[in-house]
Amino acid sequence: MIVVMRRGAEKAEIEHMAQRVESLGLKAHVIVGEERTVIAAIGDKREEMKESLESGPGVAAVMPILAPYKVASREVKPESTQVVVRDLKVGAGSLGVIAGPCSVESEEQLITTARAVKKAGATALRGGAFKPRTSPYAFQGMKEEGLKLLAAAREETGLAIVTEVMSPEDVELVAKYADVLQIGARNMQNYRLLEACGRVDRAVLLKRGPAATIDELLLAAEYVLNEGNQNVMLCERGIRTFEAHTRFTLPLATVPYLHQKTHLPVVIDPSHGTGHAYLVEDMCAASVAVGADGLIIEVHPKPEEAMSDGYQSLNLEQFAHTMAKCRKVADALGIEM
Amino acid sequence: MIVVMRRGAEKAEIEHMAQRVESLGLKAHVIVGEERTVIAAIGDKREEMKESLESGPGVAAVMPILAPYKVASREVKPESTQVVVRDLKVGAGSLGVIAGPCSVESEEQLITTARAVKKAGATALRGGAFKPRTSPYAFQGMKEEGLKLLAAAREETGLAIVTEVMSPEDVELVAKYADVLQIGARNMQNYRLLEACGRVDRAVLLKRGPAATIDELLLAAEYVLNEGNQNVMLCERGIRTFEAHTRFTLPLATVPYLHQKTHLPVVIDPSHGTGHAYLVEDMCAASVAVGADGLIIEVHPKPEEAMSDGYQSLNLEQFAHTMAKCRKVADALGIEM
Amino acid sequence: MIVVMRRGAEKAEIEHMAQRVESLGLKAHVIVGEERTVIAAIGDKREEMKESLESGPGVAAVMPILAPYKVASREVKPESTQVVVRDLKVGAGSLGVIAGPCSVESEEQLITTARAVKKAGATALRGGAFKPRTSPYAFQGMKEEGLKLLAAAREETGLAIVTEVMSPEDVELVAKYADVLQIGARNMQNYRLLEACGRVDRAVLLKRGPAATIDELLLAAEYVLNEGNQNVMLCERGIRTFEAHTRFTLPLATVPYLHQKTHLPVVIDPSHGTGHAYLVEDMCAASVAVGADGLIIEVHPKPEEAMSDGYQSLNLEQFAHTMAKCRKVADALGIEM
Amino acid sequence: MIVVMRRGAEKAEIEHMAQRVESLGLKAHVIVGEERTVIAAIGDKREEMKESLESGPGVAAVMPILAPYKVASREVKPESTQVVVRDLKVGAGSLGVIAGPCSVESEEQLITTARAVKKAGATALRGGAFKPRTSPYAFQGMKEEGLKLLAAAREETGLAIVTEVMSPEDVELVAKYADVLQIGARNMQNYRLLEACGRVDRAVLLKRGPAATIDELLLAAEYVLNEGNQNVMLCERGIRTFEAHTRFTLPLATVPYLHQKTHLPVVIDPSHGTGHAYLVEDMCAASVAVGADGLIIEVHPKPEEAMSDGYQSLNLEQFAHTMAKCRKVADALGIEM
Repeated sequence: MIVVMRRGAEKAEIEHMAQRVESLGLKAHVIVGEERTVIAAIGDKREEMKESLESGPGVAAVMPILAPYKVASREVKPESTQVVVRDLKVGAGSLGVIAGPCSVESEEQLITTARAVKKAGATALRGGAFKPRTSPYAFQGMKEEGLKLLAAAREETGLAIVTEVMSPEDVELVAKYADVLQIGARNMQNYRLLEACGRVDRAVLLKRGPAATIDELLLAAEYVLNEGNQNVMLCERGIRTFEAHTRFTLPLATVPYLHQKTHLPVVIDPSHGTGHAYLVEDMCAASVAVGADGLIIEVHPKPEEAMSDGYQSLNLEQFAHTMAKCRKVADALGIEM
Repeated sequence: MIVVMRRGAEKAEIEHMAQRVESLGLKAHVIVGEERTVIAAIGDKREEMKESLESGPGVAAVMPILAPYKVASREVKPESTQVVVRDLKVGAGSLGVIAGPCSVESEEQLITTARAVKKAGATALRGGAFKPRTSPYAFQGMKEEGLKLLAAAREETGLAIVTEVMSPEDVELVAKYADVLQIGARNMQNYRLLEACGRVDRAVLLKRGPAATIDELLLAAEYVLNEGNQNVMLCERGIRTFEAHTRFTLPLATVPYLHQKTHLPVVIDPSHGTGHAYLVEDMCAASVAVGADGLIIEVHPKPEEAMSDGYQSLNLEQFAHTMAKCRKVADALGIEM
Repeated sequence: MIVVMRRGAEKAEIEHMAQRVESLGLKAHVIVGEERTVIAAIGDKREEMKESLESGPGVAAVMPILAPYKVASREVKPESTQVVVRDLKVGAGSLGVIAGPCSVESEEQLITTARAVKKAGATALRGGAFKPRTSPYAFQGMKEEGLKLLAAAREETGLAIVTEVMSPEDVELVAKYADVLQIGARNMQNYRLLEACGRVDRAVLLKRGPAATIDELLLAAEYVLNEGNQNVMLCERGIRTFEAHTRFTLPLATVPYLHQKTHLPVVIDPSHGTGHAYLVEDMCAASVAVGADGLIIEVHPKPEEAMSDGYQSLNLEQFAHTMAKCRKVADALGIEM
Repeated sequence: MIVVMRRGAEKAEIEHMAQRVESLGLKAHVIVGEERTVIAAIGDKREEMKESLESGPGVAAVMPILAPYKVASREVKPESTQVVVRDLKVGAGSLGVIAGPCSVESEEQLITTARAVKKAGATALRGGAFKPRTSPYAFQGMKEEGLKLLAAAREETGLAIVTEVMSPEDVELVAKYADVLQIGARNMQNYRLLEACGRVDRAVLLKRGPAATIDELLLAAEYVLNEGNQNVMLCERGIRTFEAHTRFTLPLATVPYLHQKTHLPVVIDPSHGTGHAYLVEDMCAASVAVGADGLIIEVHPKPEEAMSDGYQSLNLEQFAHTMAKCRKVADALGIEM
């Protein structure tokens, strides 16, 4: 950490802060500049120290040098993590495709979609049984009934099942049916849920919150990893910005940036990331080109009649077309898909 | 709702959408303009319909006319709600002040703070016992031990107790000790938690998520209200923007805007909203002037030694000074404080 | 336009607004809903009317139905515009690559870069002679001397020259040497400059401002088109968001979105859009895959010694590598490059 | 500056960077940490060096220690600047109020407004003669005719005249009639315009761009100060965020933050900052309480008929009411108004 003292900070203040740094178990290195004095605090204490030092006398700012996450860091584990669940392979050169409806609505709807996405090349089926909805008046999902339909679709198609879990007390139930537990954007910092998912033997798909920084996302992943579960996929699904013509702003630079910082694979969600079906295909192709390790795409046999997210769902034909385009890009760049 | 058709939408598409609107139980009103046709959908079905209509053939956009929240709306209940808990009065002309440390750290720290903030004019004591922390390596709170210290401080000072609850399974425990359940910004859309807080006999302080729109905040409140709990205070604590010189951006216009839309009282948190102790006093005074119904302020006897949020905590003297300034503004404007 | 009246608006208010709409030359269509009355205003008066109506008595909101831009709209001109300047072809299936240093620094630096980017496949050379700098203490460009070096580089390599013009009074001078006038992000709403560029016989590259909406970008283009200059390229170079790990946030969904709204070609600037050289290659490949009509990339023989923007400039070898990757994607998708 | 080397940076890279720092005229101070090495670069070279160092081998990040602005800094001039123009006093304990229509529309409209705002306590009259409009189809202002009406209104009322100048070539003309040259948000980084305003004997009101950081605002002011003009007022008029219920987000914390960083006075524009007339009064009161040095408020005799910005303009009665409320707050806090 670098503690930057205010211009004109008194000698006593500087000494006080240097002692304070030492009392935290770090080594203080005072550097007197022309205009300001800075104190370099050497050692590995990270984030928590920063808060404490900033309110010291004469301090202008504290700048951390080290990233606050540890286990998720590529510095700690240089080789890329690949998450493998049935035929779904995500990371380390493999691009996995997860597709399916926003909500599980009926056996007919689900199995039709499952067959179609499998045929087009997906290796996992998504579908919400527990639905977090902005409004209490909106459809809240089929719950366990929906989980059973998902398991039945897996039975028939062999697709891995990805579904959201909303609360710690549901983790066991959802894990009974699902292969991958999805933690939604709204719950990215629901720490109890993160910990509960860290204690079960299921892969986790952790979605970035729309206002979360990358450091916050990696620290959320760290909550899961810390409990012993190493099968974590990060998911960029768009951030909230002033742009109103898309539902969220989908920053694909997250992919190469995360690849430098962490060994965990990165999945892109162009459905939520754009909020409009007609933008999804091109953003899928771009995601493949930018190096994404996976895609999660909303697909519905009749988007117009979907109980949720119809406006951003591809129909079966559009999905097949999208997959064909993605495969061209993947083949050109030597990505396994 | 207004369904805007694409320029050149075909007659069949327009008829299809008009029928679709009617099949949803609404009355369709087709208006042919010079460049576009729009269909006004009359009736009260709100948000959920919007999603379904947007993916119809020939549709360019769907614009809702009605707000998606109901019970929270001032249209439904024109008179302002006042939340009263012990001596804390929030709303309808009364400004309530909640003050105390970010985290409960020790009996000594807590009781010293409680006495001082009471003396300066606060009527409620805040203090975190369960702490949601961005990093799993940071201090996570004293848990039930902390709750007991809070109850003891109430015993001595009479201050109402405001403390955060992080998970549905903790609601009962926290409600045993606290007067007001705080739902943190990270949990604004943790729907299970909202529902659980809606079912206990405790007032709720609901913090706005840093990327939440006002409609989303009111819909989150609606989850609580819907379960029968009408004692809900909304809290603006800043949003995430590109500004980096403050921890969040604190938009005080939220206060008069919410006062027009909802009958629920609005509390401002200038500590999190700015992230720097030296900005808190002026923003407190501004909050009073803009018409806030309450303030929640972080106060610590020795901010430099705080286990969390020290950089944004006032010390006891600064708090007394801040209260004096706020009282001047409140007196000038006829606000009870 | 749709004028939404407040719940409980009085009959007189509704009548007043209906008359007001008619007095503006529009046809008023009053629709009485269960909770609210709306007035559909039929006719083509667009944006300016909106402002005037919003302050009427009893009005809750005014929602425009028509886009505010006209000449830039694909509804007006369905076929895509292709901008052709020497060997640079941008749009309608052709991907043009503009590459070169942030600032022209010396003959040696420029000609070395020009030769290398041409060899790697670029068809235009960028280079700033007039530099808008955030700080008055930073290098402000070589001015006309720089323009002469650019013209000399064109002489030798045949590359089209793209360079920024900062002020109306410089348009004539810059147009004397350059093939494409670049209007920088800071000047996107410098209307005098837009008009001046609209009156010369040079193609224009108009960069999106970091806080500009897409409608504002298209209206800025409209200022140029309106003066008679139809050779306008739009450039997405990133928007300002809360993300701090990249210099700006580069939303590639802008490309398919703009392709639907306008016939003008869309160029991506991954150098400014990310602000880090190591993110540029992947974002270039993604830009090609998403359907961009052009790329503008900062390249410098020795980024470490660049007088500006070194941290986001590719060196000559990195640029050649990037071009090879882009070409693979372009070939796979049938894009001419 | 602090140059942070990558984990595992080689000794040669560290030495190279240390030499590079020295070659820039700074003193290099190498500090070897447990995980990383950092190089403290001592001396005053600021921003421009940063760019150059970031692309060095083995460099992870470069963190500036010193603010990039100089003349605007309170470190350089500790006492607050007061701008005085006729009866308008802004800064150093005095709150100046500038009020008037968005656009000058007619003699009648202007003089009616001028008399009313003067009576209510304003000491300066605003009014746009040259109007920067998002759309080329919107009203562009009365130009010199409008300037003459402004001068006539000054003649009668004694109010100081504040009006926008859009282009360097208009500076002389506008300065002929106006007391204060307003540089609009869209032109905050129009450096030629800043320089031109820096060379005339008129006070300058510099508006913050909606995506500009505070450092960028201060550097823009520095362009004016640098030319010799010290009468600069900064104006916060809202930033662009994801919030859509207000036109912009108005961060009042800017006031105490700027007061710490600069000696220049800070004016708040609650009209543009909220975009809705009904939010202006409360935000004016809050601006006074937070310590603003001035207010600039849009006022129109008949907002419903205004040619621009009617939805955010107060009528004459609302303005008088707003002023009365502001005066109460100012009196309570000992602010001269």
